[in-house]
Amino acid sequence: MLNKNNKILVVGSVAYDSVETHAGKRVDALGGSASYFALSASYFARPTIVAVIGDDFEQSHIELMESRNIDLSGLQIEHGDTFRWAGKYDPNNLNYRETIDTQLNVFAEFKPILDEKHKSTDVFFLANIQPDLQMDVLNQAGEKPKIVAMDSMNLWIENNKEDLLQLIHKVDIVFLDETELRQLTGIKDLIEASKSIIGMGPRVVIIKKGEHGLLMNSIDTDNSFSLFACPALPVDPVIDPTGAGDSFAGGFMGYLTSVGKGITEISVQDLRKAAVYGTIMGSFTVQGFSIEQLKLVSIEQIEKRYNEFINLTTVS
Amino acid sequence: MLNKNNKILVVGSVAYDSVETHAGKRVDALGGSASYFALSASYFARPTIVAVIGDDFEQSHIELMESRNIDLSGLQIEHGDTFRWAGKYDPNNLNYRETIDTQLNVFAEFKPILDEKHKSTDVFFLANIQPDLQMDVLNQAGEKPKIVAMDSMNLWIENNKEDLLQLIHKVDIVFLDETELRQLTGIKDLIEASKSIIGMGPRVVIIKKGEHGLLMNSIDTDNSFSLFACPALPVDPVIDPTGAGDSFAGGFMGYLTSVGKGITEISVQDLRKAAVYGTIMGSFTVQGFSIEQLKLVSIEQIEKRYNEFINLTTVS
Repeated sequence: MLNKNNKILVVGSVAYDSVETHAGKRVDALGGSASYFALSASYFARPTIVAVIGDDFEQSHIELMESRNIDLSGLQIEHGDTFRWAGKYDPNNLNYRETIDTQLNVFAEFKPILDEKHKSTDVFFLANIQPDLQMDVLNQAGEKPKIVAMDSMNLWIENNKEDLLQLIHKVDIVFLDETELRQLTGIKDLIEASKSIIGMGPRVVIIKKGEHGLLMNSIDTDNSFSLFACPALPVDPVIDPTGAGDSFAGGFMGYLTSVGKGITEISVQDLRKAAVYGTIMGSFTVQGFSIEQLKLVSIEQIEKRYNEFINLTTVS
Repeated sequence: MLNKNNKILVVGSVAYDSVETHAGKRVDALGGSASYFALSASYFARPTIVAVIGDDFEQSHIELMESRNIDLSGLQIEHGDTFRWAGKYDPNNLNYRETIDTQLNVFAEFKPILDEKHKSTDVFFLANIQPDLQMDVLNQAGEKPKIVAMDSMNLWIENNKEDLLQLIHKVDIVFLDETELRQLTGIKDLIEASKSIIGMGPRVVIIKKGEHGLLMNSIDTDNSFSLFACPALPVDPVIDPTGAGDSFAGGFMGYLTSVGKGITEISVQDLRKAAVYGTIMGSFTVQGFSIEQLKLVSIEQIEKRYNEFINLTTVS
């Protein structure tokens, strides 16, 4: 049913993460928004990664991504070390984490470069990087892709708000967590806040709430709003929440890519199914460190969890 | 469709609350677990309140409850003041509140007394009061009612844990919030924690998560577990969250009472519909101070929100 040949381009980070949780630790494990996104999306579509890595990047990770049919033609290899992040989660509450170290390394000078094939990709995902780089990617594309989605974070809302707002006017789908959405709009009520984003141009706002799932607001072809509340799929035990949001976005956008429609043709049902597939991909990611579980998933397991999700949420 | 003549008995508190939120304040407004519960349940069934009030209790509040067809034959009037509670919510985050004052007054000496008619009620709700009083009510009933449900709080888990555990062994449905459930069981994972409660005898555990909705775990006739994730119905603006949990329980138990089955005959669908009706009653309560909105609801509004909830959560 899925058309896994449809293409989606993601620009973001590829990183090595050192992470400690109640369940243990990993040093220099594969991470970064583009890695999680592309691996997750690869179960639904053919992702292209536009990102930068250092010359320390391991060949085994290249091979892993290629084995998942990910197009690495936009992956720049620069002299120096790959982006590194280190963090530690509160052993009693995975909602809290401390960043111990960030080394941008080759990412500090990252300038996304799209070739002609990249530019003609139908679906773009601008993962959480500096807004002017996100805009640069969109400008390089020339004609607007059929669907453009973006993510961001508190750092850019604080320091690059004008750039971010300009970008939001040019995208179709916005992913933010509840705190970021309130911070960006200055509106406490999440639904009103999402409407104010939709008022700037996007058709869909996904409000991520971590372990509590998400709210999605979208505007339909008849200009009415459609609100969807989607709980998380409970998994036990959660090993490491790192990458859950990017894996969610990868499943969501991967599924939409497989549907093959332009943003104005997408139905409320398409969006809701995308949200469920995203939720499921996030649920796999948190069951292991780094991409350890995400890389092992099968289509059958995805469909099994999809049915479990429907059973979890259907009233009668 | 609802059988509003079926009876449900609630034992709990009737109080006067002084509450301050971002939206304003009220002094000595009607509150207490039994008040919220009974008013909420009154849209589905005929509640009987077993509680105590002081001789300062206002006649208008008696009349309000009688106008909702609530049986007050178990309401003891004692010499002295009615239970008073005063609290203030964080103006920026309604999840946090500070108790400013608690005056037990006549509630300090409360001894529930059930007459013969009370004892033969099919459905009991033991609202959040001292566990030995909850047990006393159950003992007075003699033969076990068709359905017994209970709520509790951190205070009793800390100070009266043995009494509470004894009680849990004798009830069918347990309402707790996520913190209380973890505290009581010592198990961090909510689903495992709910299973440990079910292992003690209850068939249904409702894990309340406030603005994030709830998880419900129940054991079916074939001994399999059925998990239901139910988001809250977003309302804007929220005026005062006081009583949301008791209103939820009132809608939940009121609906189950109207269905008229014994605990072992209740289906997963009955429980899920009950959870949605409970959610809806909670959503009305938070839209006003005290019982100001809850008392004004119509069956038509309840059914309208029920349909809104289904639309909010149905994937396709």
